[in-house]
Amino acid sequence: MTTQTLVKNIMNTSMEDIPEAVVEHAKKSIFNWMGVAIGAANHESVDMLLSLKEDLQSSAQVSILGRSEKADLLLAALTNGMSSHIFDFDDTHLDTIHHPSGPVAPVVLALAEWYDLSPSEVIRAFVLGCEVELRISNAVYPSHYDLGWHITGTAGVFGSAVAAGILLKLNEEQFTYALGIAGTQASGLREMFGTMTKPFHPGKSAQNGLMAAMLAKKGFTSSKQVLEAKRGFASVLAPEYNLDRVNENWGSQWELLKNAFKPYACGIVLHPSIDACIELGKYGKSKDVQEIQVTVNPYVLELTGKQEPKTGLEGKFSIYHSATVGFLYGAAGEDQYKDDVVNDPEVLAFRSKVKPTVKEGMREDAAVAKLIFRDGTEKTVAIDHATGSLEKPMTREQLIDKFTVLTQSVIGKDNVEKVIEKVDNLESLASIKELVELCTPQNVAVK
Amino acid sequence: MTTQTLVKNIMNTSMEDIPEAVVEHAKKSIFNWMGVAIGAANHESVDMLLSLKEDLQSSAQVSILGRSEKADLLLAALTNGMSSHIFDFDDTHLDTIHHPSGPVAPVVLALAEWYDLSPSEVIRAFVLGCEVELRISNAVYPSHYDLGWHITGTAGVFGSAVAAGILLKLNEEQFTYALGIAGTQASGLREMFGTMTKPFHPGKSAQNGLMAAMLAKKGFTSSKQVLEAKRGFASVLAPEYNLDRVNENWGSQWELLKNAFKPYACGIVLHPSIDACIELGKYGKSKDVQEIQVTVNPYVLELTGKQEPKTGLEGKFSIYHSATVGFLYGAAGEDQYKDDVVNDPEVLAFRSKVKPTVKEGMREDAAVAKLIFRDGTEKTVAIDHATGSLEKPMTREQLIDKFTVLTQSVIGKDNVEKVIEKVDNLESLASIKELVELCTPQNVAVK
Repeated sequence: MTTQTLVKNIMNTSMEDIPEAVVEHAKKSIFNWMGVAIGAANHESVDMLLSLKEDLQSSAQVSILGRSEKADLLLAALTNGMSSHIFDFDDTHLDTIHHPSGPVAPVVLALAEWYDLSPSEVIRAFVLGCEVELRISNAVYPSHYDLGWHITGTAGVFGSAVAAGILLKLNEEQFTYALGIAGTQASGLREMFGTMTKPFHPGKSAQNGLMAAMLAKKGFTSSKQVLEAKRGFASVLAPEYNLDRVNENWGSQWELLKNAFKPYACGIVLHPSIDACIELGKYGKSKDVQEIQVTVNPYVLELTGKQEPKTGLEGKFSIYHSATVGFLYGAAGEDQYKDDVVNDPEVLAFRSKVKPTVKEGMREDAAVAKLIFRDGTEKTVAIDHATGSLEKPMTREQLIDKFTVLTQSVIGKDNVEKVIEKVDNLESLASIKELVELCTPQNVAVK
Repeated sequence: MTTQTLVKNIMNTSMEDIPEAVVEHAKKSIFNWMGVAIGAANHESVDMLLSLKEDLQSSAQVSILGRSEKADLLLAALTNGMSSHIFDFDDTHLDTIHHPSGPVAPVVLALAEWYDLSPSEVIRAFVLGCEVELRISNAVYPSHYDLGWHITGTAGVFGSAVAAGILLKLNEEQFTYALGIAGTQASGLREMFGTMTKPFHPGKSAQNGLMAAMLAKKGFTSSKQVLEAKRGFASVLAPEYNLDRVNENWGSQWELLKNAFKPYACGIVLHPSIDACIELGKYGKSKDVQEIQVTVNPYVLELTGKQEPKTGLEGKFSIYHSATVGFLYGAAGEDQYKDDVVNDPEVLAFRSKVKPTVKEGMREDAAVAKLIFRDGTEKTVAIDHATGSLEKPMTREQLIDKFTVLTQSVIGKDNVEKVIEKVDNLESLASIKELVELCTPQNVAVK
């Protein structure tokens, strides 16, 4: 009954049933998502996807964030979904390591632009899409993730199907079939981490879920119990699961509220150390530093112990590099993980001063950093909860800064300011197109 | 090393390395596949897929078998892959219940038509695509299938990527990445059996594998060890597996030679009973029959014990109906599983005379049928190996009959004869287009 109940829950949830705090968090999520997608829009892997347009002689229906090209609905969903995950800088549901916007937002955006849908339906579709994928992730995490599934790719396809299903106004049977057609396409292996195929996963979820809803709308039939059947999603893809998690507390508890935003363009385990080193950077110059001792949870060195990274990507797996840029630049955005920064002589010299030690029992979102000056004086900073954790979420200003740094070279400063205003007033926009057009470079003056 | 070795094996296998018997079996497989695809081309689910053309404003690049529309490469691969599995009448690798042509042939056909490729490359791509998917199926069967994966959908995506990779002339690194991009999309749940989503699986494998190879050609990166990695295909999707099966006896043993063709449009377990009843039908009229006792393997009643089917699809899961049409019509093709046949009064009356009994130890491809006439006389027929088994493969004439019955109302009798001739001489065609054009109805005179 899990699938049937879920469909009823979805269909019975109107915009009025969604609390204001959830709507606000949805808008933040969409804003953060657009920023990371626009920021990565000129990555070579995006060029590759978009060159499929020529191979397939496909149409130019809707916008690609940060690009002047348009693509058809399915290719746009794939491309925007992928670009938003390229920097590993998108949102995270910390309970399940699921990145909810990636599979859902591109579908919402594509359909809303093409069919000129009302912004309030857009918000409803986004909220319910995220809610469903996160609840399904709750049901199968951690055994599903531990087995090797990239949960954003697998559970994500349900989210994109739900978002599309709402915008395409599926009836109950069609909705049920859409979940079936989507769920049978659930895929994405963690083995792909570290390659272009990782960000491909949320893109493909977006594309597959959208197609599932489009086909269901036409009468395409499928299973009515994809989640709970003996050979359905949970049983086949998760050694252990609890399907009660899918529907319990529906409407009273919102998983989307647990969606967190990253201030730094690297794994979350590094964030408290970076917080601490940014703070320490205010107390002295690099030439005066003897060493920085960073005390962290044991996971940190296991996952990010690379002492001599050679590329930006490797830098993301180095506490040495991350602490260094925190101190030297007061930031750890995508710019601080570029190859030339990783290989900068000053950065290299400072990296050898970073001395991490692990401490059993230290929480994952905590760290202590002690700066020892050449003259023997010391300064210690303790971080209890890293920026971006649920206890210390990014502020509005931090989110705007992140968005601005990521996007202004792509869409121009004027557009950045206008996007901020449009997202603030998302519900009242006459058309979603007003927003989407600002996210592409066609109106940008010479950079 | 499994993936790397596999790629080397693929790339080192030229047309000269493929034995003549394998080429002949490939041609039979392609011919049988085209027949079932053309036969189902006007199914409503195909209409639904093709209506995506309008939603996406997509292009008309290559042919859809049995249809006058064309579609872009990816939609054509999806559609032809799906239509060929709609009747459950396509080829089967009996060791793994994998239907090899479905994921591979549509990709080969689409690329060959669009880029006007040489028929010998087409055959090589088809053979190696099938060989790879079947060897991967061998490695994970039966645990993978038992868990609930539709193996044609999952392992199939490797086959389509390999076929596309050959035709797109990928280099070694690109080929390796193509397998990674494909393998991470492996999907398809057995829960979907009995719905339109089942035949969707080979279609989606075809589409996903083709896109994987297209992206790899552009430099898209992926894992280099998708098959054997800790969080790769085998480990994540199969409780037990033996990856030695992927590369062992490469070039000396050919899995494609174990590909079997179905004479009857229902599950293989029913085939020996149908063989026996067709034979019995030569010995008497239905009005003289008291009963027919059919002795079968226990699986048969478990899988196909439906006594009173109401629809054609249910008829396929009924030994009562299947034995009846064998006796009455001397056939069990798609026509004998139409709703009106299932509900025909004469068929209904005869069905109650069919008395199956199970016998432990009876082989799955064997059956004994005893006809008892009203006058008390008897006639017994024992089938040791059903038609379509490896021991008793369909003859050339039977394959041609099957193809003709399936296709002549769609593409016309003239085209049917020409297709037979073109497939016989596949290697020597000037262009694959000569063949493909005959498989569409545009040149058909009024039917």
